[in-house]
Amino acid sequence: MKITAGKIAELVGGELSGPPELVITGAAGLDEAGPSDVSFLANQKYASKLAESRAGLLFVTEKTPVAGKNTVKVKNPQLAFAKVLGLIAPEVNPPAKPGIHATAVISKTAKIGKDGFIGPFVVIEDGASVGNGTVVCAHCFIGRKSSVGNSGLIYPNVTIRENVAIGDRTVIHPGTVIGSDGFGFVTEGKSHHKIPQLGGVEIGNDVELGANCAIDRATFGKTRIGDGTKFDNLVHIAHNVQIGRNCLLAGQVGIAGSATIGDNVVFGGQSGSTGHVTIGSNAMIAGRGAVINDVAEGQIVSGYPARPHREAMKIEAIIHKLPELYDRLKKLKGNE
Amino acid sequence: MKITAGKIAELVGGELSGPPELVITGAAGLDEAGPSDVSFLANQKYASKLAESRAGLLFVTEKTPVAGKNTVKVKNPQLAFAKVLGLIAPEVNPPAKPGIHATAVISKTAKIGKDGFIGPFVVIEDGASVGNGTVVCAHCFIGRKSSVGNSGLIYPNVTIRENVAIGDRTVIHPGTVIGSDGFGFVTEGKSHHKIPQLGGVEIGNDVELGANCAIDRATFGKTRIGDGTKFDNLVHIAHNVQIGRNCLLAGQVGIAGSATIGDNVVFGGQSGSTGHVTIGSNAMIAGRGAVINDVAEGQIVSGYPARPHREAMKIEAIIHKLPELYDRLKKLKGNE
Amino acid sequence: MKITAGKIAELVGGELSGPPELVITGAAGLDEAGPSDVSFLANQKYASKLAESRAGLLFVTEKTPVAGKNTVKVKNPQLAFAKVLGLIAPEVNPPAKPGIHATAVISKTAKIGKDGFIGPFVVIEDGASVGNGTVVCAHCFIGRKSSVGNSGLIYPNVTIRENVAIGDRTVIHPGTVIGSDGFGFVTEGKSHHKIPQLGGVEIGNDVELGANCAIDRATFGKTRIGDGTKFDNLVHIAHNVQIGRNCLLAGQVGIAGSATIGDNVVFGGQSGSTGHVTIGSNAMIAGRGAVINDVAEGQIVSGYPARPHREAMKIEAIIHKLPELYDRLKKLKGNE
Repeated sequence: MKITAGKIAELVGGELSGPPELVITGAAGLDEAGPSDVSFLANQKYASKLAESRAGLLFVTEKTPVAGKNTVKVKNPQLAFAKVLGLIAPEVNPPAKPGIHATAVISKTAKIGKDGFIGPFVVIEDGASVGNGTVVCAHCFIGRKSSVGNSGLIYPNVTIRENVAIGDRTVIHPGTVIGSDGFGFVTEGKSHHKIPQLGGVEIGNDVELGANCAIDRATFGKTRIGDGTKFDNLVHIAHNVQIGRNCLLAGQVGIAGSATIGDNVVFGGQSGSTGHVTIGSNAMIAGRGAVINDVAEGQIVSGYPARPHREAMKIEAIIHKLPELYDRLKKLKGNE
Repeated sequence: MKITAGKIAELVGGELSGPPELVITGAAGLDEAGPSDVSFLANQKYASKLAESRAGLLFVTEKTPVAGKNTVKVKNPQLAFAKVLGLIAPEVNPPAKPGIHATAVISKTAKIGKDGFIGPFVVIEDGASVGNGTVVCAHCFIGRKSSVGNSGLIYPNVTIRENVAIGDRTVIHPGTVIGSDGFGFVTEGKSHHKIPQLGGVEIGNDVELGANCAIDRATFGKTRIGDGTKFDNLVHIAHNVQIGRNCLLAGQVGIAGSATIGDNVVFGGQSGSTGHVTIGSNAMIAGRGAVINDVAEGQIVSGYPARPHREAMKIEAIIHKLPELYDRLKKLKGNE
Repeated sequence: MKITAGKIAELVGGELSGPPELVITGAAGLDEAGPSDVSFLANQKYASKLAESRAGLLFVTEKTPVAGKNTVKVKNPQLAFAKVLGLIAPEVNPPAKPGIHATAVISKTAKIGKDGFIGPFVVIEDGASVGNGTVVCAHCFIGRKSSVGNSGLIYPNVTIRENVAIGDRTVIHPGTVIGSDGFGFVTEGKSHHKIPQLGGVEIGNDVELGANCAIDRATFGKTRIGDGTKFDNLVHIAHNVQIGRNCLLAGQVGIAGSATIGDNVVFGGQSGSTGHVTIGSNAMIAGRGAVINDVAEGQIVSGYPARPHREAMKIEAIIHKLPELYDRLKKLKGNE
């Protein structure tokens, strides 16, 4: 795939400094990019690297002066870069060969849309449906009455149990499980009796779920994940959790039962939340943070248990000085 | 499915206040329940919600007075509710169609019981056995000489390697792996030489394992999980771990090699234990707790490293006051 | 399988005290070993158990005197034991039946080596390759242009997406995913736009990956795992992470994007690292440690945030005394 610098500038609505006829054939990070690659500055703290980069074309902002380089000035260089990446990619994943593989086992009462792909050894059960243009890769399982919307991409080995509703343009990475039973038991004496988990899972549009995640079905009602929310790998979502729109959950996050999470909430890696709490929209949970109480809208929390981040930082700074403090205290007169 | 209030009271051995002929067709939480639903109070702190609930029938205890509502008085409302849920559920998961799917690859030396179900693309190897009434869903793998008991339910995509013994009435959620090699290496210079993991895994009766868990086989001998123990999702059990009966392990718990855990032990979410420790029966590890030493019978521990919970709470309270303490200490005379 | 004590001593290059004709048929831990088993002392603190062991033959060092027992003196008893285990094992996992199962779906443009095994329902896509003597178990998926080297062992249900290169003698446990998209999005307003993840994954020789791990592909370039590195279960590796040779990552470790990790680095269970940091060779991250800054070569760190281990231990000791300190501080004159 070849594209000119002029075409790129046009595509992203940016201002080109350099020869419009320059041919770009690839994309790479600042360090790796060569004369026929486009690149960009992801993080302002690496600005000094711009001058050293061998990239043929650079996305920059007004604030990033780069002398003697071919540049395209844009508002958001990373966004411009992401748009161009899709074009330059030599092949789209996975291959787009519409059709249903001969080995797939599909119930007569299941509905499969047009222009999609159903891979080898896929199992689709009674009353399930897959929308138009959706790719379901090898070894996936879609249970009774579950639905996957249009233009979705379900990677190999994904298990979607019964009564799960998934929106349009959803991407699900390999090994992820949706609709496993919630962890619900009633203890009588020493034995734990199962509480049947009769609810479902509802996943919005434009959701992306990483590899080997597990999202439990509700006891009754629905476990919900809102439009535009993205999960990294190995995320655990318990029964009846309600997650809003455009949230980001990093790797190995765990959310316990019936937690309610607003819109645009960010969970850092290995963080988590206890059950039955409410986390307001635009809140941010730092990596490894453990929420045990409600978090207000827009609040940034960190640590165990999670506290407002400023407070946690202040405490952290003092903990660092504890050995010194302790020595000082021991030396104080009247101490014994 | 329809059932009368009178029938429900009889079924759970409770005392009905209200019309016995009232027809109940569903079950739901207090907030969602309507006039033809049964519901219950799960948590005493939400007692005020009882009066507002639109539920047609409520399970209550002697201590929860509810005026003007149809109620069934029972000792354990949640247990009564769990029992009724099974009856009201419109369909049992997964569908009960006895038989062996034509695509399953089953060794001639494997034994399959009566009245069960073996799903599409299941692989069962030499000398393995599946008991009566057990459902093995699509894409499961059961290795050589492994056995699954009677009335089990193995969801799709479960991998059971060789020499694993699983009891009766076990439920295993999708993506879970049983019998992966323990993480055992001998380091010589810089290289790590594998210690062959020749043991197996033994899982008792009435065990439930969540989605995408991983349970390693023993180096020799057995990794063991006792009767009635339940795991949530993404739980990691290392080689030679011994877990007793009726334990509860919440999401993302990890137990390192050769830890010995008694009966009725509860691990909160994202907690864990180092290897070669003993955790006594009835102990409780709070969420995110990290056990690094033995835990006595009945002890409640929390934090990192896990301490008796009361002590951890006391320390936590002081940590919260550290900035104030620090300021106070700086003001003390004779401090310099 | 039977082997004499004399043959064992010869095999491991050790010095036998006892009858060379003694027949050994099994191997076990010190507690379980019987008169026809070989055993060894794994941990010096259990040295007292040597005398009580019923093992027929014991691997010992010069420093471990054992009177009245049949012993083989070696430099590294555990290594000697590991070598003998492989010989005594009644059957190798998985069974070595060269061939390609009739149900496997293999592209005409894929290359499969000699003397290996491709199991039931395996899917291998265009341009992929599997080396000589490599076993690919049931339900595995190998995507376009991906390669697995010689003498590998890929357990059931493993997903290897496109453009992943895996070396020789690699062992991958069930459910593991390699090549899932990195977690990369550009946020514009409230929406998160996907950054196409066009890179690959490169895994060296002699690597072992536990069950249900997830290793993301690079945005561009490669996510790399060096020769001889071993992972336990449920490990998460983000995009563009570079891991050196002979590292050990215990269960549930998570490494965020673009972290660079040297050789021989050890990560304890449930530990992790933030992205874009450098961890020097021979460093050690204690269990549950959370790296947020660079770690120097050979440094041992622990805690949250991870600090040099000695410092963390000192702080930990004082934290333990905080309630006492607090009381003392309150009693000090002039405190108010």
